[in-house]
Amino acid sequence: MLGMIWVRACSALVGFRAPTCVRSLHSFPGITVAQIDEEVAKLLELKAQLGDDGKTQFVLKTPKGTRDYNPKQMAIREKVFNTIIRCFKRHGAETIDTPVFELKETLTGKYGEDSKLIYDLKDQGGELLSLRYDLTVPFARYLAMNKITNIKRYHIAKVYRRDNPAMTRGRYREFYQCDFDIAGQYDAMIPDAECLKIVHEILNELDLGDFRIKVNDRRILDGMFAVCGVPDDKFRTICSTVDKLDKMSWEDVKKEMVNEKGLSEEAADQIGEYVSMQGGMDLAERLLQDHKMSQSKQACAGLSDIKLLFKYLQLFHVTDKVVFDLSLARGLDYYTGVIYEAVLTQASAVSAANEAQNGANAEESVSVGSVAGGGRYDGLVGMFDPKGRRVPCVGVSIGIERIFSIMEQKAEASPEKVRTTEVQIMVASAQKNLLEERLQLISELWNAGIKAEVMYKKNPKLLSQLQYCEEAGIPLVAILGEQELKDGVVKLRVVATREEV
Amino acid sequence: MLGMIWVRACSALVGFRAPTCVRSLHSFPGITVAQIDEEVAKLLELKAQLGDDGKTQFVLKTPKGTRDYNPKQMAIREKVFNTIIRCFKRHGAETIDTPVFELKETLTGKYGEDSKLIYDLKDQGGELLSLRYDLTVPFARYLAMNKITNIKRYHIAKVYRRDNPAMTRGRYREFYQCDFDIAGQYDAMIPDAECLKIVHEILNELDLGDFRIKVNDRRILDGMFAVCGVPDDKFRTICSTVDKLDKMSWEDVKKEMVNEKGLSEEAADQIGEYVSMQGGMDLAERLLQDHKMSQSKQACAGLSDIKLLFKYLQLFHVTDKVVFDLSLARGLDYYTGVIYEAVLTQASAVSAANEAQNGANAEESVSVGSVAGGGRYDGLVGMFDPKGRRVPCVGVSIGIERIFSIMEQKAEASPEKVRTTEVQIMVASAQKNLLEERLQLISELWNAGIKAEVMYKKNPKLLSQLQYCEEAGIPLVAILGEQELKDGVVKLRVVATREEV
Repeated sequence: MLGMIWVRACSALVGFRAPTCVRSLHSFPGITVAQIDEEVAKLLELKAQLGDDGKTQFVLKTPKGTRDYNPKQMAIREKVFNTIIRCFKRHGAETIDTPVFELKETLTGKYGEDSKLIYDLKDQGGELLSLRYDLTVPFARYLAMNKITNIKRYHIAKVYRRDNPAMTRGRYREFYQCDFDIAGQYDAMIPDAECLKIVHEILNELDLGDFRIKVNDRRILDGMFAVCGVPDDKFRTICSTVDKLDKMSWEDVKKEMVNEKGLSEEAADQIGEYVSMQGGMDLAERLLQDHKMSQSKQACAGLSDIKLLFKYLQLFHVTDKVVFDLSLARGLDYYTGVIYEAVLTQASAVSAANEAQNGANAEESVSVGSVAGGGRYDGLVGMFDPKGRRVPCVGVSIGIERIFSIMEQKAEASPEKVRTTEVQIMVASAQKNLLEERLQLISELWNAGIKAEVMYKKNPKLLSQLQYCEEAGIPLVAILGEQELKDGVVKLRVVATREEV
Repeated sequence: MLGMIWVRACSALVGFRAPTCVRSLHSFPGITVAQIDEEVAKLLELKAQLGDDGKTQFVLKTPKGTRDYNPKQMAIREKVFNTIIRCFKRHGAETIDTPVFELKETLTGKYGEDSKLIYDLKDQGGELLSLRYDLTVPFARYLAMNKITNIKRYHIAKVYRRDNPAMTRGRYREFYQCDFDIAGQYDAMIPDAECLKIVHEILNELDLGDFRIKVNDRRILDGMFAVCGVPDDKFRTICSTVDKLDKMSWEDVKKEMVNEKGLSEEAADQIGEYVSMQGGMDLAERLLQDHKMSQSKQACAGLSDIKLLFKYLQLFHVTDKVVFDLSLARGLDYYTGVIYEAVLTQASAVSAANEAQNGANAEESVSVGSVAGGGRYDGLVGMFDPKGRRVPCVGVSIGIERIFSIMEQKAEASPEKVRTTEVQIMVASAQKNLLEERLQLISELWNAGIKAEVMYKKNPKLLSQLQYCEEAGIPLVAILGEQELKDGVVKLRVVATREEV
């Protein structure tokens, strides 16, 4: 009997090969979502059982594309986070947190082609869920859901992408984003300028070497495409080809435009002229006079805003690092105005120094690249609002994983040891049978707010207690001895100098 | 043609009803895991399409059992975390982080019946993954994977359980755990005592009202079951019935033991006598002399350790809050020695005060309950080690969500406003056309490390700038005016008193 059912199931499994046409069968009587759920569960159970046979070996690892942080890495991470949070707080930002997963439909239609990189949760009954892909979409959902029209917030949390990253370059499937965003209807370019000031402050304070902040505007790009004769329906795809200019030569980019995307050679050449332009306020000025560019209203709006932005950036004294770069395009669909990206220009020096130290570990060095990026997205919140009410937003995301990698390399290259605890004093004993006295003393220290450790042994050797201090970088030891206890004193020893009081 | 295939698929779906017997069919030719995957994908796609018809409405919400944290909640959360982290650091703990998901097999066989509450990720090709259920199993995996035999670490992170929690009681499907654990082969009860000292310090500092820390030992429970005549194979199930004593009366617990679990009435009554016992070191002493209890070697080992534990707790001056309670059982399977749990004994007072304020919101009050728990688990790391090497561990987990709920209620009941930013000064203007001057001044303040805000308007009204300060609790305003600029000074105003300098 069972065999027969199985044969029927299998023949169906083999025969059932037309999922795309299924829509026309909605009215088929007797099949419900619940039934499908049940059958799916059974099949997966069967699969799990089949799978068991194959591999009996237990693999001790973290999932692909993820990693643990050990205490040393955490100490570096904490330092970086503190610098960034201090800056966000200095600029008056509040912070929020959102769940690690969202309803699947919340993420649908926000990431274009990259949607295939979203992690879905298994359908275990109930809602269909996905892990968050960035912090911007949950932020927009939060604003729409709570009808918030004005907020300046930061959010530091992990996001998830089923990418195939080169992990040695500091890219992972689980990674942190540090986002700062300003939502609200304000006068042009004031919050935008503050975002760039923040990037400038953070990269300066983290001391990662020299950097450049490239600035452009989606309206300038679109206007440029229009006046160069790119058909409307090709704006987006040509834009993502332009985005590759930081990794590909202009020749290859042009080839992609002409051969793959079907653009005319003439249009491509015109684009090529523009995207090679870099400058400051003067370039914006010049392009506003440009015979062709000035034909596009959109481009002119963008160029005027770039001028205004540079004016504010001058007041903030950050124009030394900012460059108006017409080749900057940014991947994400939702940007509507100013866009920017910060790149380290000296990271190669760090890598090179590190490679020299570590030998031929060339692949493991951190590649120079974008460490911050963002822009204006005035339409995203409206996508969530039932009435489509817009909340203009501008924000920046600090690419913290690359920064970690660089800081880790720097720490490794440095002779200084990274401490993973903040312990100030070790309570030790010079003789046996002083456990109770040690516990009593350390309890007093803890109650006084002093960071202190004691060895969890009844009779530890003095030498091993001192060795522990040296390894952990604990600066002081309180040494208990019979004589000192009689005298009612404690001997205090500075580990580094062996000085005793 | 399509219709025919569909009929075959459906008849199979209806007919295929014997998953439990499927194991015998492993050798069925022509069905592979890949094929099952493919068919499952098709069925789920079909389901998604069926589902689309039902609901066209987009739902703006967070997933069931989860919540956003708004800036006010985050401010409270930060305060609580800082208190806890300060304590963990005072005790010399390092910190680590692990991925939010683990290989599914890492979690398999660790949580007993609760395994059904684990969130699985969808099989999108590649590894089978699950969201972490607690921080203890990832910690054990980390130790085994990195061959670490000694560490004192804390880990604060979110964990995931597909529970059906009463959310008004501060329970969620996504919630924080704050874990402190000591791994290593040490002399008995020294690290265990430190864990209890930590709970004592944290609950004191958080000022949540009076509390009790109940202590017991799995070996005492097992010994007790043995001498009361519980069959070996029923230890675990009887143990989980005893665990319900904090929610059920002894009568009901006894009923479950006898009627559902098939224990003899006599054995149940004997257990009943023991589990009503509470005390301190004296009770451990007495039970060591107990005619029946002393027959169990295991129980005696546990009782001796409880005595030793109390000795150390006396040195730490925390015995006022600690009680040896034979009814404490703890749910998790992996405990092997001392176990403990802290409960608030005054939380009802907070709730009552809050209810009085908010009217009849009785359901929304926070229930009294466990706010910390933990114990010794000497076998868990060995489950991950290929050679089964044991790393003894003891730890404690602070139940932070309940603490948040209480703190939130306290904050709401308090007349003091929770500030969500730390801004010290607002740069304002008394007249029009002073945007540039405001931006210049705030840039100087930021560069000097001062937390400052400016309104993102060209010409904001002075009144609206002052109102913003009052709402956000910003203590100072720097007011720019034509006259002051000429004189080269800035007027500084204290918002609360309107004093000006």
